Amino acid sequence: MSITIRNATAQDMSSVLQLIKELAIYEKEPEAVKIDEGLLRELGTGDQPLFQCFVADTGQKIVGMALVYFRFSTWVGKSLHLEDLVVAQKERGKGIGTLLYNEVMRYAKAQQVKRVEWVVLDWNTPAISFYQKTGARLLKDWYLAQMDEGRLNQYLAQIDSHTSTK
Amino acid sequence: MSITIRNATAQDMSSVLQLIKELAIYEKEPEAVKIDEGLLRELGTGDQPLFQCFVADTGQKIVGMALVYFRFSTWVGKSLHLEDLVVAQKERGKGIGTLLYNEVMRYAKAQQVKRVEWVVLDWNTPAISFYQKTGARLLKDWYLAQMDEGRLNQYLAQIDSHTSTK
Repeated sequence: MSITIRNATAQDMSSVLQLIKELAIYEKEPEAVKIDEGLLRELGTGDQPLFQCFVADTGQKIVGMALVYFRFSTWVGKSLHLEDLVVAQKERGKGIGTLLYNEVMRYAKAQQVKRVEWVVLDWNTPAISFYQKTGARLLKDWYLAQMDEGRLNQYLAQIDSHTSTK
Repeated sequence: MSITIRNATAQDMSSVLQLIKELAIYEKEPEAVKIDEGLLRELGTGDQPLFQCFVADTGQKIVGMALVYFRFSTWVGKSLHLEDLVVAQKERGKGIGTLLYNEVMRYAKAQQVKRVEWVVLDWNTPAISFYQKTGARLLKDWYLAQMDEGRLNQYLAQIDSHTSTK
């Protein structure tokens, strides 16, 4: 099987969404994916896309993808964030993930970023072991903090009512 | 003391850099800040800035800042990342951090993002306690993974030499 790694087009977004869902299942959050294909098309294309996506193409179908975007680190400057790297379940163990990972690292170099960053679940030992073999550093003393839309609305209602009774 | 929270201008970047360095000292990484004022001006202004920055202004000086940028979550869509929130050491305990935090949350709502995300060191209990009081969720089962410039160059040299000897 010959695999081409290339930039995703709008037409690939259906396959990309399928892979995002596969990863969410693997990460034990099958209900977590709230986005749809239209949003991927809308935010991933155009003049100022929010992300870029590489796909692994067999010529017949898309069997993997890596989704990245730029961030800004106040310590090192421009950085690249690897949001997702997924290979279709049936195609795992063939080196396709490595091809995608290498493409991301080459892209980071070409874009002259100072760091590539991503997150990994603490029980995902196959991934952790792969990342460490490539020289990546694991930081275990940071927690992620999140305010989702519902919590955000609740908090804003709370501070606004507080302000108005002052 | 009356505090105004406003968008940072190019002229504020010297104060912003000072605050970034204060935070790095607090986070026990005093040598971590490799960026300079020029980079903050270059990447934080113009048509497609990599970040936006809010400052807390007493009219006399900048006493705090919050630096944010957009990200893309494959689970929920457009999100806002809070990279740094810092109050000058002498000015802590006066509610300035809360003013900045509230501004970030109002901005997130105005921009219709689906999530605000940031990271916090596991020993930073005052910050963690504040975030939890506001309703934020802490995720403790993710590790950060990073490939910095040096490690990236090393890895690319390794895979390229491997490719050329095949």
